[in-house]
Amino acid sequence: MDVYDILINMKILSLLNKKRVFLDYASTTPVLPEVLSAMKPFWNNKFANSSSLYAEAVVAKKAIENSRTDVARVLGARAQEIYFTGSGTESNNLAILGLFEFYRNKFVPHIITTTIEHPAVLEVCREIERRGGDVTYVSPEANGIVSAKDIFSKITERTILVTVMMANNEIGTVQPIALIARLIKKRREEKNTILPLIHTDACQAGNYLSLLVSTSGVDMLTLDGGKIYGPKGVGMLFVKKEIQINPIVWGGGQERGLRSGTENVSGIVGFAKALTIANRDRSAESARLSVFRDFLVKEILAISPNITLNGDSVMRLPNNINVCLPGMLGEFVVIKMDTLGVAISSGSACGTLSDTGASHVLKAIGKEECASSSIRITLGKYTTKKDLVFFLDCLKRIIAK
Amino acid sequence: MDVYDILINMKILSLLNKKRVFLDYASTTPVLPEVLSAMKPFWNNKFANSSSLYAEAVVAKKAIENSRTDVARVLGARAQEIYFTGSGTESNNLAILGLFEFYRNKFVPHIITTTIEHPAVLEVCREIERRGGDVTYVSPEANGIVSAKDIFSKITERTILVTVMMANNEIGTVQPIALIARLIKKRREEKNTILPLIHTDACQAGNYLSLLVSTSGVDMLTLDGGKIYGPKGVGMLFVKKEIQINPIVWGGGQERGLRSGTENVSGIVGFAKALTIANRDRSAESARLSVFRDFLVKEILAISPNITLNGDSVMRLPNNINVCLPGMLGEFVVIKMDTLGVAISSGSACGTLSDTGASHVLKAIGKEECASSSIRITLGKYTTKKDLVFFLDCLKRIIAK
Repeated sequence: MDVYDILINMKILSLLNKKRVFLDYASTTPVLPEVLSAMKPFWNNKFANSSSLYAEAVVAKKAIENSRTDVARVLGARAQEIYFTGSGTESNNLAILGLFEFYRNKFVPHIITTTIEHPAVLEVCREIERRGGDVTYVSPEANGIVSAKDIFSKITERTILVTVMMANNEIGTVQPIALIARLIKKRREEKNTILPLIHTDACQAGNYLSLLVSTSGVDMLTLDGGKIYGPKGVGMLFVKKEIQINPIVWGGGQERGLRSGTENVSGIVGFAKALTIANRDRSAESARLSVFRDFLVKEILAISPNITLNGDSVMRLPNNINVCLPGMLGEFVVIKMDTLGVAISSGSACGTLSDTGASHVLKAIGKEECASSSIRITLGKYTTKKDLVFFLDCLKRIIAK
Repeated sequence: MDVYDILINMKILSLLNKKRVFLDYASTTPVLPEVLSAMKPFWNNKFANSSSLYAEAVVAKKAIENSRTDVARVLGARAQEIYFTGSGTESNNLAILGLFEFYRNKFVPHIITTTIEHPAVLEVCREIERRGGDVTYVSPEANGIVSAKDIFSKITERTILVTVMMANNEIGTVQPIALIARLIKKRREEKNTILPLIHTDACQAGNYLSLLVSTSGVDMLTLDGGKIYGPKGVGMLFVKKEIQINPIVWGGGQERGLRSGTENVSGIVGFAKALTIANRDRSAESARLSVFRDFLVKEILAISPNITLNGDSVMRLPNNINVCLPGMLGEFVVIKMDTLGVAISSGSACGTLSDTGASHVLKAIGKEECASSSIRITLGKYTTKKDLVFFLDCLKRIIAK
């Protein structure tokens, strides 16, 4: 056991001794007991490979197709428009790279996205540039919301895709997807063309915003099981009928040829159950958490006049609070809060892997000085008023020092 | 409810009323209770995103890294050579496409494989041809085993990869991977080059053959959780240190940049546990099932002089029986056996999706007349002698008709 191991074990031990408050639901959510119950039969009872011919396989196949129907219902889509994948990240890759690869030999495809997307979109776009495609990155306004007109003005004859997240993972701002989709649809009709398509990464929106594709008008939509109280390792991509994209993983031809690999039956069943519950609880949970969010914002801003809210105060997810604490290092606050028993985040979980911890989202909205000085608090199903009070108490102790 | 639904429900109902014998372990395996126990804490207790900074995330990260060490131990590899993915199919894609994409802008890469690979390799090779690469497909001998010399003779200056499965999924034949690797290594040393590399799809071998990469000498190796009594939706790719391949999915940079997406912690922990158990039980289980296999082969061949064994009788997996029943349709036998209570397969589970049910493997070994007339019986952990007797009884009833 080396020093690093000892430090880690000390950190883990601290979990046993202290009250813990988890306020980082945007990074991932626990699996609901009802979801686990739904998954359970498919681990070692109904475990068959759905591609086989015998009765056990038919049971597995039926479970998958029932799940597909359940998911389609939440999206207001057709069952055959729902594709199960291994994660939200994979779904984004499939949507964007898959469409690019389909068109790449026909002309030089152009894609429009925003500067505040998750790495699962931004890194795909960078790969597309390496593969010879063109990408336009549109920055949002200072409130963290992109202008539909800005996006629309960048469309060219070669634009195959506009991909804009439904809600931002760091600052929770909700993007005008329906408006963008409407402008695009109008243009397609006028020009009598099927392009560009519109894709949205709805990973952060799954619990709180309507996912009805008839309302939003999107052509492709990404969800992730691990963000909606379902299992990790399973995602979903909605692809509107008639749209052709290439697979990014090749093999046995599962998911109607778009995503090969033996189907993760328990994962798919769990995903559908989680999404169904998220849909059922959407209004009540959004209302409950909005009150908590607004309370927390008010109380945090009251600690010091220097503190500012990052992102629009109204057009944001009900569970997201992101504040700039000038003069403090966000990561330092996260680590101090951790020692006091509170789990929060500086920026997103994914950002911590690849860069210095400075937020590309805050830079994009012109708050360069806040890029390393902000913290994200995200609420969830198990968050209580007591948790908020405890959080505020801890935060005040750190800021007072 | 339409007619199709009624038929399906009849089929499912039959499960409730009849004794069932599952003899299709090659298609997938149930999750072991010990594996489920190991996974359990990570669903809704230790559920954090391992990329975060707080204690809960450190617990998740430690679980992943411990799993990586456990897997590395079974392979005789270094922990940093182990990459977790979403399936064996994805691992094969990552190994082959990832290497191809790394070299594609430098010259026209050439890949050597066999005609009896799983679609998760063959379809990737076809995609590589569409992307402008060259692929040589080597056919095995009549016994279903490829000649190492045949493979070796196809190597050119542009060959970046030789990919040969460790054991075939339909007829269970074990391929001379170590010999191929030795020839390649010798050539690399003589020519003072790092290419070609050798990859093996070991999905079917996980429970029965040594996975020690120091013994086999492979540079990359694929495993799948759903074939080794672990969870579906998680796979592994071993990539020897110093080898550079491109990711096929881009995003947050998890798995040291090679496989983005929030880590499926419970899946990874379950995979490692399953592999550790497979390794522990390898000798005993191989010995037990070899006896069963040889008994079954003898008894099936005794039913009629027309029946032949597909693939080598010795160099095959301990759990695989594949026989040609001339004049009968394999799928018909599978469906009849299903009604009698036995789950077996004609060819592989994956083949049933994309083609007519005729086996590309049997065609490749020159048994064209058996390609639609064969059945695969694969044994597993829960197979008893009684199951074999029941199976034989059912098979005789069908053949007698």
